[in-house]
Amino acid sequence: MDYKNENLINPEIQMLQLPVSFHKKTRQNLVEAMKGVAQGRSIALFRGDTTKPIQDQDIEENFQQESNIFYLFGVNEPDCHAVLELDTGKSVIICPRIPEAYKLWMTVKEAPYYKQTYQVDEVKYDDEFEAYLKEKNPEEIHVYFGVDPDSGLTLPLPEQPFLKSYNIVNDKMYHILNELRVFKHQEEVDQMKFIGDVSSEAHVRVMANTKPGIREYQMEALFKFHVQERTGSKEKSYDCICASGNEGPSILHYHDNQRIVTDNSLILNDMGSKYNGYCSDITVTFPSNGKFNDKQKEIYNAVYDAYISVLRSIKEGVQWQDMHHLAEQRILEHLIKIGLVVEAPIDELVQKRVGAVFMPHGLGHLIGLRVHDVGGYAPGHPEKLKDLAGLRSLRTRRTLKAGMCISVEPGCYFNKVILEQAFNNPEVSKYLNKSKIEEYTCVGGVRLEDDVLITKDGHFNLTNVPRTVEEVERACAGLPWKN
Amino acid sequence: MDYKNENLINPEIQMLQLPVSFHKKTRQNLVEAMKGVAQGRSIALFRGDTTKPIQDQDIEENFQQESNIFYLFGVNEPDCHAVLELDTGKSVIICPRIPEAYKLWMTVKEAPYYKQTYQVDEVKYDDEFEAYLKEKNPEEIHVYFGVDPDSGLTLPLPEQPFLKSYNIVNDKMYHILNELRVFKHQEEVDQMKFIGDVSSEAHVRVMANTKPGIREYQMEALFKFHVQERTGSKEKSYDCICASGNEGPSILHYHDNQRIVTDNSLILNDMGSKYNGYCSDITVTFPSNGKFNDKQKEIYNAVYDAYISVLRSIKEGVQWQDMHHLAEQRILEHLIKIGLVVEAPIDELVQKRVGAVFMPHGLGHLIGLRVHDVGGYAPGHPEKLKDLAGLRSLRTRRTLKAGMCISVEPGCYFNKVILEQAFNNPEVSKYLNKSKIEEYTCVGGVRLEDDVLITKDGHFNLTNVPRTVEEVERACAGLPWKN
Repeated sequence: MDYKNENLINPEIQMLQLPVSFHKKTRQNLVEAMKGVAQGRSIALFRGDTTKPIQDQDIEENFQQESNIFYLFGVNEPDCHAVLELDTGKSVIICPRIPEAYKLWMTVKEAPYYKQTYQVDEVKYDDEFEAYLKEKNPEEIHVYFGVDPDSGLTLPLPEQPFLKSYNIVNDKMYHILNELRVFKHQEEVDQMKFIGDVSSEAHVRVMANTKPGIREYQMEALFKFHVQERTGSKEKSYDCICASGNEGPSILHYHDNQRIVTDNSLILNDMGSKYNGYCSDITVTFPSNGKFNDKQKEIYNAVYDAYISVLRSIKEGVQWQDMHHLAEQRILEHLIKIGLVVEAPIDELVQKRVGAVFMPHGLGHLIGLRVHDVGGYAPGHPEKLKDLAGLRSLRTRRTLKAGMCISVEPGCYFNKVILEQAFNNPEVSKYLNKSKIEEYTCVGGVRLEDDVLITKDGHFNLTNVPRTVEEVERACAGLPWKN
Repeated sequence: MDYKNENLINPEIQMLQLPVSFHKKTRQNLVEAMKGVAQGRSIALFRGDTTKPIQDQDIEENFQQESNIFYLFGVNEPDCHAVLELDTGKSVIICPRIPEAYKLWMTVKEAPYYKQTYQVDEVKYDDEFEAYLKEKNPEEIHVYFGVDPDSGLTLPLPEQPFLKSYNIVNDKMYHILNELRVFKHQEEVDQMKFIGDVSSEAHVRVMANTKPGIREYQMEALFKFHVQERTGSKEKSYDCICASGNEGPSILHYHDNQRIVTDNSLILNDMGSKYNGYCSDITVTFPSNGKFNDKQKEIYNAVYDAYISVLRSIKEGVQWQDMHHLAEQRILEHLIKIGLVVEAPIDELVQKRVGAVFMPHGLGHLIGLRVHDVGGYAPGHPEKLKDLAGLRSLRTRRTLKAGMCISVEPGCYFNKVILEQAFNNPEVSKYLNKSKIEEYTCVGGVRLEDDVLITKDGHFNLTNVPRTVEEVERACAGLPWKN
């Protein structure tokens, strides 16, 4: 066994911290936005995430901070609460008091640490929280409470028994705070560009080191190694999707990652990471042996056309749903040309949802402190659709505005279940060339996904991976890939 | 950026599966052990672990199966239950029924998959569970319920509302099943040797690639990469401890892993992994620049002497607490020789708990499907001590028997908090040479940890890492390290 490798661990790691001034600004913005909503001596109370044992063991799940408390206070330790006084703007972190004896077992952080690191106005221990509240005597305690439109879930509320004697308001702050989070500050864009770059490098490294015969999870392992080795991050944006062969890439959230990569197949790697709270979400598709075959290239270029058309069109003022339709149309045009879809007016194909047979998911989602970020559906913006295939999976239908960060992820798949349904539906099947489609199921699926910042005139790309057929093939060969 | 590396992803991965016959055997053993305890038509009901969203997101925590349902049925998918009929021995897996439409989004496993993979007698969907119970009409439903002595926690019980009409017995099976799990079958030993070998290789690879200037988390990243790249495992045995400098290694469960590795310091890496349910737990200590200095070598050899003395003594019939005392004595002898501890009869030093100033934790713990495995404290065996320093941290005080797997992990630390307490305690401080100890605090701490199987005549080592000073220095240089 010879595992020494001079370049495997490199002291020149990369780091980028959010300045405390950023959190101060987000707090000021929330105080401002809550004016006229919060009455008198009101406070906003946030519950950070907690240490969670794995089952009944004395081992814990990886900690991931709740995103609002992080956004507003920067606090990244478990078992904290935080208060923002909406009348005075004063900020208070409530931290756990950890017994002295624990210093033998762990790094114990005490009040001065929180004060110095996060530069809030005050730090209280959890056993001082009740007395603080009594003194402040707030007329309202605003908490963040709402149903997430993607998951249908809510966050747990603060549950200190002494809160019962106060007026807890849970229906005012959710959309106000979400709306602030939708529009990214420069500091946030810097963070997202940083983790986007590291994740992009990781993807390219995986492409250069993949060959037929390896297991899908080996690609996941290398991706995660690159990100943790470069940044130290153990945070999870989402489960890595490493899909190969003619079935895996057609399953949208496939993350079994157990199969052996076969020769002459496409690999769809949808992997992102999270650093200092902010997420990346990137998908590349590349040939297992480094060279696309003809069918793979045809489908790849259909998706590439959709991808580049959307990137050329997005800017402030554009409706996201129109971008979804644009991607769908581009893909349909290619499929007609190849002969998989019968020639027909594009409007008719769109109306019959033929595009959704091949791209059954939404074009993308807001991204930030969560991979599927908050604010996709909100009062005053288009509602979620219930019925239309593909469109009902859109995670937002908003009009784009500068400052939003969103993923652009068109795809074209040959999914068994969807195709069977389509072939059995006479309304749709009449547009499909079944025998020709069956020739292409070996392609599996293609998805290309970038994260971008919307600007007045276009977009700023947070992702940096090879995209054209030539670039991809160069990256697979381990060559400099940029045109 | 040139990241292509021919050896980074290697198709020759390693795999080892538990045979279904193993789970059949564990079920038969439980049926046997419950005879005379369970009445008439009784069943044992197990609740597998569930998919857990991260906060209110549509992203999930990494799944880790509950260890009893895995032990008895092998089932490794979320949201399952399983039944063992204690009268007939019949085995039933209750699996979730997942809507057809999910096949677009994920790999959907259906009843035939469970039946074929786990070869149980029957598979029911969760919506068929109530009817199955009605037909079986068990007089007792035994569930696994007890307080874990390490964490003080209990596992969640099955909570189907229709269970309320049955006689749920929660005080019979816990210790019976734990006791079966304490004694490992050959198939389990094979698994533990397998993951022990892979984890050992990962440690050696980290040692060969570490140098001053890197960050602690880069060692963690490489360890985890090696394990996942070789085996595919994403399971977590425990959080990686990568501690360097003169403070980190003295904090027993330090896992911040953020510091820069300094020259001329010791690195204490306590990292294990989990494969197919079974854990490894391994600690190495090595010099950051590859060569021990004199003080480091003295303390290292004190711990090595304790380590090798215990390994030479353990076998069936030996009391674990005696091994703890043996380790303590060996370390004290060295500390007296170096001049850190005042010459005094060993019995007196042990009685005054002077050894616990330097080794404040227990010598080790049972290991298996959990890193701190079940059965350490059980009826008919010595109880947990409440008072005596070091000894109260023992996770078991049992008499060793062939078939047990246990970690052997003596250590010697210069922990600020403990030393301050000791210097301020006249009963202890009179045995300590304070100024000399202060000269050695730069050593930080040393821990050496192997996992072993107890045999009639000794032990079988599940770990394979460099241990002598010469071996460690060779491994750090990337050379073949074995004598």
